[in-house]
Amino acid sequence: MKLGFIGLGQMGVGMAANLVKAGHAVTVYNRSAAKAGPLVALGADAAATIADACRGDAVITMLADDPALDHASFDENGIVASLAPGALHISCSTISVALSGRLDDAHRACGQHFVSAPVFGRPDAAAAAKLAVAAAGCAEALDMARPVFDAIGQKTFLFGDHAPAANLVKLCGNFLIANVIEALGEAVALAGKGGVDRHAFVDLLTSTLFSAPVYRTYGGLIADRKFEPAGFAATLGLKDVRLALAAAETLEVPMPIASLLRDRFLALLAQGGAQLDWSAISTLALKDSGQS
Amino acid sequence: MKLGFIGLGQMGVGMAANLVKAGHAVTVYNRSAAKAGPLVALGADAAATIADACRGDAVITMLADDPALDHASFDENGIVASLAPGALHISCSTISVALSGRLDDAHRACGQHFVSAPVFGRPDAAAAAKLAVAAAGCAEALDMARPVFDAIGQKTFLFGDHAPAANLVKLCGNFLIANVIEALGEAVALAGKGGVDRHAFVDLLTSTLFSAPVYRTYGGLIADRKFEPAGFAATLGLKDVRLALAAAETLEVPMPIASLLRDRFLALLAQGGAQLDWSAISTLALKDSGQS
Amino acid sequence: MKLGFIGLGQMGVGMAANLVKAGHAVTVYNRSAAKAGPLVALGADAAATIADACRGDAVITMLADDPALDHASFDENGIVASLAPGALHISCSTISVALSGRLDDAHRACGQHFVSAPVFGRPDAAAAAKLAVAAAGCAEALDMARPVFDAIGQKTFLFGDHAPAANLVKLCGNFLIANVIEALGEAVALAGKGGVDRHAFVDLLTSTLFSAPVYRTYGGLIADRKFEPAGFAATLGLKDVRLALAAAETLEVPMPIASLLRDRFLALLAQGGAQLDWSAISTLALKDSGQS
Amino acid sequence: MKLGFIGLGQMGVGMAANLVKAGHAVTVYNRSAAKAGPLVALGADAAATIADACRGDAVITMLADDPALDHASFDENGIVASLAPGALHISCSTISVALSGRLDDAHRACGQHFVSAPVFGRPDAAAAAKLAVAAAGCAEALDMARPVFDAIGQKTFLFGDHAPAANLVKLCGNFLIANVIEALGEAVALAGKGGVDRHAFVDLLTSTLFSAPVYRTYGGLIADRKFEPAGFAATLGLKDVRLALAAAETLEVPMPIASLLRDRFLALLAQGGAQLDWSAISTLALKDSGQS
Repeated sequence: MKLGFIGLGQMGVGMAANLVKAGHAVTVYNRSAAKAGPLVALGADAAATIADACRGDAVITMLADDPALDHASFDENGIVASLAPGALHISCSTISVALSGRLDDAHRACGQHFVSAPVFGRPDAAAAAKLAVAAAGCAEALDMARPVFDAIGQKTFLFGDHAPAANLVKLCGNFLIANVIEALGEAVALAGKGGVDRHAFVDLLTSTLFSAPVYRTYGGLIADRKFEPAGFAATLGLKDVRLALAAAETLEVPMPIASLLRDRFLALLAQGGAQLDWSAISTLALKDSGQS
Repeated sequence: MKLGFIGLGQMGVGMAANLVKAGHAVTVYNRSAAKAGPLVALGADAAATIADACRGDAVITMLADDPALDHASFDENGIVASLAPGALHISCSTISVALSGRLDDAHRACGQHFVSAPVFGRPDAAAAAKLAVAAAGCAEALDMARPVFDAIGQKTFLFGDHAPAANLVKLCGNFLIANVIEALGEAVALAGKGGVDRHAFVDLLTSTLFSAPVYRTYGGLIADRKFEPAGFAATLGLKDVRLALAAAETLEVPMPIASLLRDRFLALLAQGGAQLDWSAISTLALKDSGQS
Repeated sequence: MKLGFIGLGQMGVGMAANLVKAGHAVTVYNRSAAKAGPLVALGADAAATIADACRGDAVITMLADDPALDHASFDENGIVASLAPGALHISCSTISVALSGRLDDAHRACGQHFVSAPVFGRPDAAAAAKLAVAAAGCAEALDMARPVFDAIGQKTFLFGDHAPAANLVKLCGNFLIANVIEALGEAVALAGKGGVDRHAFVDLLTSTLFSAPVYRTYGGLIADRKFEPAGFAATLGLKDVRLALAAAETLEVPMPIASLLRDRFLALLAQGGAQLDWSAISTLALKDSGQS
Repeated sequence: MKLGFIGLGQMGVGMAANLVKAGHAVTVYNRSAAKAGPLVALGADAAATIADACRGDAVITMLADDPALDHASFDENGIVASLAPGALHISCSTISVALSGRLDDAHRACGQHFVSAPVFGRPDAAAAAKLAVAAAGCAEALDMARPVFDAIGQKTFLFGDHAPAANLVKLCGNFLIANVIEALGEAVALAGKGGVDRHAFVDLLTSTLFSAPVYRTYGGLIADRKFEPAGFAATLGLKDVRLALAAAETLEVPMPIASLLRDRFLALLAQGGAQLDWSAISTLALKDSGQS
């Protein structure tokens, strides 16, 4: 396929590389152009503008947040204005349900296709083509997108023909990860204050009922109290919880744990932890209980 | 070893059977004697009294709650009064940190050994000798208990020489399971109200970051809304959260999620759900959001 | 003074009438013009456009929410475009801290004055000129606004020269009222389920430590379970809690009770209570405890 | 009346004095006898034992907590054993609903009367006979107790014939006070961080909708950040919230704000604030938001 790829951050660079390796003709664009170098070395073309990345069958976006994707999509000479009728926009970013809905409407109005396909996995999974893809959109568009999903991920999960549903799935997933961090923080605060070795505790958990990557990754960080460098910064954690709560407000769904998580991230930021990994909210239960 | 085993409930019957199969001489006791029959058929002896189950090297208790173990231990002709000096009491029940501390003191005062060894796993794991054992006690007592652990479980995790620490680990573990139920309930309430198929959502989760037994078991029950028959009743869930909160109060550790869980269990009971599986607290987020 | 008054809802109509009665020359504007009739009968002039209401020394706005004031202020031929240099905008609406800040900046940039002066009190207090005014703005502007405050309220409280501070005070005040409703709801759920007569309970409270209007008003509504007609609708309650939480997020202040209140309002709306008085969130504690 | 009075703490000493001044024959008892001196000087008799204080028509107890009243009532030669048939026990302490129920049963079984009559007010109100009395018990017993209520309080509120209902009312009242402290703490954290003067903020509140003693008292302490000496220590605050939660658990009533308050008191104690006034939980919202 003839593809454009917009957004060469830690995640995007690996995803774009896997598309090149899979044999697609990929034109990459990044606001700071230097990021394109390694991909050009692999065989990609570098676009000078967003519009230049929108000349093919499909364009994939992997941007930081709502404002970035909003600008890239709706600005003059942006994606919506540049994509050919019948062409496809695959949005892989973690964005709001509301923006996803606006994109879905706008592309449809222009005779273009839109698929929402946020991904689960850290940068190493992106580089290894081992992402999990949560995709939603009309059947025709999902068919068009299939070679892209196959190149970037190891499994794709379909969530129907309403594109924003996939974004909701992604936000719920990130909510569940943040919940694991908070719950482990509380459990380690209690067990630790009662004399339990926290590494042994996490070892037990992850050897039994909780033998999942999320408990191993965050259990380790929490037991080690190692929150720098940030794999995923606290500010991004707050952003994602905020997006989940915004969707919950629109849908009128009370979520007490999500509310607690929001308060935890605000406390962490207020106390100077904006640059720490989001798992640093686990330190708040320690502080509350007088363990520094 | 010459062993006694007190408490032949769903868990205890499997554990005792595995001790018999491992070649130990086991004398079993249960308040309602009929439960002993299948074990006697396997080669166990049936004791007429608790004292009769305390004549060997060690006695294992697997009872329902604090009052049951309290009586069995401290009544006239109970375990503390009956066990020989140098003999061992291995408590596998999920009990309060406080009672564990009292037992530790009482046995020490009588020249007896005490090990706290609560187990993780459901009745099928108990029957299959696949429990995980969290054990704490003095080194000599842990050495004595080793053959018992090997017969009932697949792995033993040691938490030092202070017996109540193992009970704290167990309570923290159950807190973390209840947390998963609540968090999945909130996430499914949000995603479901937004049009996401809840089985597909749980499938994604358990295929990726959350590929752990606790998410598979409870994600399945929540997606199916299947809360009867109870694998673990809501009343027991409340009991365990209450024990965690009691330990947290003694240690002065605020635990906001544990407080939320307590409120959820109270709501479930108040609304007639005492006999449902504890995963039925997940229905409260649905009700709150107007989804019946 | 020569005044304009924009927004003739339940509150505004009483406030505008009191300005007329105090001898000011008042030109009133409302989107649906019929509301102006009674005021014209009192001696006010009716403006055909917002711009026509901005020809005097000052214009007072009392609008429903952020979007309404945003449009009235920033639209072409809106307040900012129409007010003379040196003239004053007094905003009495309950709006976001962010919008107040934008208005402050915009008016300053145009050589106009801006005072934020949200009011405390229900429509009967507005009609009786018994509002409490929370005002902030530069000293000169506050001096200009003094005759207006004297005409509409019984006491004015000053909060310095940063206009948005007054909005924050108003949002905190409404947060505290909502908190009283929730706390009374929980207390009545407990006492009532324990056999205490809820009217006697509220009578005790309001005769002693809690002898304040807010407890009398809402204690009465809660004891009577009388939530229609709405004095202040649940949707408005949610709006104000959302504005408080938005300010709290900007300032990085975790507010667990505000988060709870948000969840309560969402639950009430999800269960069909959007048109009820906001005190109907008190029914949720009853429902949670199995009291219909 | 011929009265006994047990418990001469800060509250009891004023209450007993008012009974003497009202013309009753009062025999006082306190564990540390020195406290009786000033009352003997007023005309009271000093009892050497609890039994000696139980020889009259009625005995009033004003003790610190459940264990103190439990011992005084149920020990050998305690109140239940010593009171004559037909005589009356008036319990004014803040105790659990459960203990009140046990006392009610025990006195009835002995042909004695029991009235639960916890009081609202601080020591100065006790000294000035300005307490509010919340009373429950059988009609005959309430009639007998009337002269006592008239001597110690300014108004008595009746809650029916089930004595423990009065204790529930008292616990709900203290819950509502603690709620005011927490809510003011959150509001001051937000307003203060936004530049609002906290004294001006409290002044506005207590001049308007919140013009009640509880807001004036605690608003002042919070604005002044003056938490020593303690008028009511944090440990007592935790005790009362715990008693409210215990009643709520028995009655199956979820109370999210009560759960939050418990966590706040635990955090305050864990951080070394046990001896501070209970209003010091308001500092936790400040700390969470990075305001020391």
